[in-house]
Amino acid sequence: MEFTLGQIATILGGKVEGDENLKVNRLDKIQEGKEGGIGFLANEKYEPHIYTTEATAVIVSEDFRPKSNLPCTLIRVKDAYNGFTTLLEAYAQLTKMGKTGIEEPSFCDSSSRIGDDCYRAAFSYIGKNCSLGNNVKVHAHVSIEDNVIIGDNTILHSGVKIKNGSVIGKNCEIHSGAVIGADGFGFVPQEDGTYKSIPQIGNVIIEDSVSVGSNTTIDCATMGSTIIRKGAKIDNMVQIAHNVVIGENTVIASQTGISGSTIIGKNCIIAGQVGIVGHIKIADNTTIAAKTGISKSIKKPGQTIFGYMGMDIKHFLKSYTIFKNLPQIQDKLKELEKKQ
Amino acid sequence: MEFTLGQIATILGGKVEGDENLKVNRLDKIQEGKEGGIGFLANEKYEPHIYTTEATAVIVSEDFRPKSNLPCTLIRVKDAYNGFTTLLEAYAQLTKMGKTGIEEPSFCDSSSRIGDDCYRAAFSYIGKNCSLGNNVKVHAHVSIEDNVIIGDNTILHSGVKIKNGSVIGKNCEIHSGAVIGADGFGFVPQEDGTYKSIPQIGNVIIEDSVSVGSNTTIDCATMGSTIIRKGAKIDNMVQIAHNVVIGENTVIASQTGISGSTIIGKNCIIAGQVGIVGHIKIADNTTIAAKTGISKSIKKPGQTIFGYMGMDIKHFLKSYTIFKNLPQIQDKLKELEKKQ
Amino acid sequence: MEFTLGQIATILGGKVEGDENLKVNRLDKIQEGKEGGIGFLANEKYEPHIYTTEATAVIVSEDFRPKSNLPCTLIRVKDAYNGFTTLLEAYAQLTKMGKTGIEEPSFCDSSSRIGDDCYRAAFSYIGKNCSLGNNVKVHAHVSIEDNVIIGDNTILHSGVKIKNGSVIGKNCEIHSGAVIGADGFGFVPQEDGTYKSIPQIGNVIIEDSVSVGSNTTIDCATMGSTIIRKGAKIDNMVQIAHNVVIGENTVIASQTGISGSTIIGKNCIIAGQVGIVGHIKIADNTTIAAKTGISKSIKKPGQTIFGYMGMDIKHFLKSYTIFKNLPQIQDKLKELEKKQ
Repeated sequence: MEFTLGQIATILGGKVEGDENLKVNRLDKIQEGKEGGIGFLANEKYEPHIYTTEATAVIVSEDFRPKSNLPCTLIRVKDAYNGFTTLLEAYAQLTKMGKTGIEEPSFCDSSSRIGDDCYRAAFSYIGKNCSLGNNVKVHAHVSIEDNVIIGDNTILHSGVKIKNGSVIGKNCEIHSGAVIGADGFGFVPQEDGTYKSIPQIGNVIIEDSVSVGSNTTIDCATMGSTIIRKGAKIDNMVQIAHNVVIGENTVIASQTGISGSTIIGKNCIIAGQVGIVGHIKIADNTTIAAKTGISKSIKKPGQTIFGYMGMDIKHFLKSYTIFKNLPQIQDKLKELEKKQ
Repeated sequence: MEFTLGQIATILGGKVEGDENLKVNRLDKIQEGKEGGIGFLANEKYEPHIYTTEATAVIVSEDFRPKSNLPCTLIRVKDAYNGFTTLLEAYAQLTKMGKTGIEEPSFCDSSSRIGDDCYRAAFSYIGKNCSLGNNVKVHAHVSIEDNVIIGDNTILHSGVKIKNGSVIGKNCEIHSGAVIGADGFGFVPQEDGTYKSIPQIGNVIIEDSVSVGSNTTIDCATMGSTIIRKGAKIDNMVQIAHNVVIGENTVIASQTGISGSTIIGKNCIIAGQVGIVGHIKIADNTTIAAKTGISKSIKKPGQTIFGYMGMDIKHFLKSYTIFKNLPQIQDKLKELEKKQ
Repeated sequence: MEFTLGQIATILGGKVEGDENLKVNRLDKIQEGKEGGIGFLANEKYEPHIYTTEATAVIVSEDFRPKSNLPCTLIRVKDAYNGFTTLLEAYAQLTKMGKTGIEEPSFCDSSSRIGDDCYRAAFSYIGKNCSLGNNVKVHAHVSIEDNVIIGDNTILHSGVKIKNGSVIGKNCEIHSGAVIGADGFGFVPQEDGTYKSIPQIGNVIIEDSVSVGSNTTIDCATMGSTIIRKGAKIDNMVQIAHNVVIGENTVIASQTGISGSTIIGKNCIIAGQVGIVGHIKIADNTTIAAKTGISKSIKKPGQTIFGYMGMDIKHFLKSYTIFKNLPQIQDKLKELEKKQ
């Protein structure tokens, strides 16, 4: 799988600055590039590497102006990052051929319908009355319980657990160890101090083109549905409690937790280790910085929020800077008091 | 499975305000209710929905006084929330019939004893010298290692891992992906900068009626036992380190971590993403708000604690309010200094 | 398995203070010691228990001077903690005999090579072109995908998932439910608000003598490798994103998250629930206290860092103490203003 730079430029709609006939056979990071590799430069932080890289070629944006001589050939494209990911995709498709067929022993109840071109690994489990679309990949140790529906082209990686009644769309990817549709955490305190569990009779609905990270947990609704809208991207070890709704194209980074019945808008970006209380709403296009705690609804769309008890990020950073200076502030105050 | 409102009122010990012969066949949320459904109103935040719901009936508390005309029939009971959960339980029992029998292939060492009416799913694994009570449910991809004891009616959901020597009581529910009894995190630094691992030869004891959430990890003790006392309810992705003790009826929400040898009292409520250091004690009836860090013992029972370095919640909120005003405070201080 | 105190003293290179012929058959915690048990005292916090313990013997350090009469026999060694862990190890080796052989049904593609004395549990899965060294333990429900290399003596506990192309060294221990080598979280925003996923074509390399905790996730690199250097010890539910490098002998406690492309030095100690942003470097020998957020590189080795936005721990604690006093400070300021 060797390509000339000319061929690659054609694929990307760009043009070569140098010898079009040079060949590459590998994608490299610019800072680790070696002969025969092609890298990219999209973030100016990495610009110094382009003057020393050993990669044969580097993809850059149209407006890139080198500050000194370059050891590599350039391919100029409209957007270097997008161009490179296009190459990555092509590479991934060539190398990671999707598996098909059934490995034994596997388990599938006879009441379940399985589409064409599916893969069912050894030790995969499919319960009663399930329906899997075409080209669904069910890896080893996946358990799909009863009454589950899964759309075309969805990939369930090894060890994914899909509980009773879950509905998963097309073109989704659920990574290893994720648990979809387990009981929500609901208990009623009793007079004697014990807790009675509230039956969780709802389900989880995951729409099309959703990605769910490894070991993430998405609980079923008490009643109704916990819903992940189409295009949402959820990282590893995210907790999504019962009856939560995650909006279209919202991105949630690792170790964030969202409590019961909270509704997150669309196109939000939520960083890692964020905690959001239950029963609130987050407006569309909200950005929440890492480790933020959110205890009430965010009503105005498009804000960036940060802090232990989340507020506008500029305000928080200002207060935090002064927090660092509190010892000096206290000293000044004491001085002022003495002078009185 | 259709019931008249009269039948439901009888089950709940309540009374119908309207036509006792109307029939319902589904439990609905009040805000999403449709004809043929029955909802409930327990939290006044949801009261507006009762004036517009399309549900056939709504369960309310005895003292509920509507502020305008209602589109639905009422069933009045002593406690609307408890009444509804009673219905939920009945519904759940009717719909989620417990599985029994053995699906193949499954694995069970001949030295282990299995009680009556157990379910052992395909790909479930039971090692040597285990003892399972009656009506234990062992779902797909559950692994029970050697010398494990499990009490009657306990449910191990798909993918649960129970390590060597664990003891689990009756009527427990362990959700998918939870790991019970893996080695605690113990290493001794050596002079050359490497670490020697400390063998973890203890176990985990989980008493009766405990719930453990999906992908939660409860490590075995270095020596002795990590103990979860009866009635404790633990949410998803909670970390419980070696030699921790969780008191009776204590509730712990998602993504909280408790470090080694810490002892938590009974009837505590610990919210999500809390971190508690090792080797301390938390008094009975302590409430800890979300994201709190606890670095020393809490000796007085019944407190509510909050903050990055946990303190009394009212105190923390007061300080945090001023933290938000630090820019103004700094300005005032500068003015005062100028005037001097 | 009974030993005299004389025999134990010989093993530990220590000496008995009392009757060398007393026998013990069990390791006990000093505070829970019973006749026939041997405990240890290394932390002075536990000293009160030595005056009341029922254990037959206690291991203490050479310089321990009792403050009153002791109910037990002493074995004096250079370092009581190390001495005791030596005993623990011997005990663990005697009791936890490693399993060997193949339980059925198990799955192993014929293209994979398996070393001598390996254990492959029922329902373990090994894909194509893998290479396992000697004495590797593959427990139940472990999935090893294609092109994986695993070194001698490594233990993969139940439910571990090793993805395509991962390389794992010798003498490693990967605990239950850990996911090694799943796709990193990389998406490019598109003009219509959706996200295109960036193929993750790199892998994970884990060097020798690494420990990985239960349900921890270590993502593969976008390109190149995510690397865990030799001797690193990683606790439960730690998130390690794509292209991260963890230095030699670095210890990371539970629920910490490290974002993409960050490089952690060697011999660092990172406590629980820490969050570290992407694309930064942490110097060697850095200590980071629990719940700290790190948003920029730490360049000077050997510092201890703490705080919501991490800084020097002494500075943070000083500021936080004043934070607690903010209500009083605000009052003083108001008084001063009035007086003007």
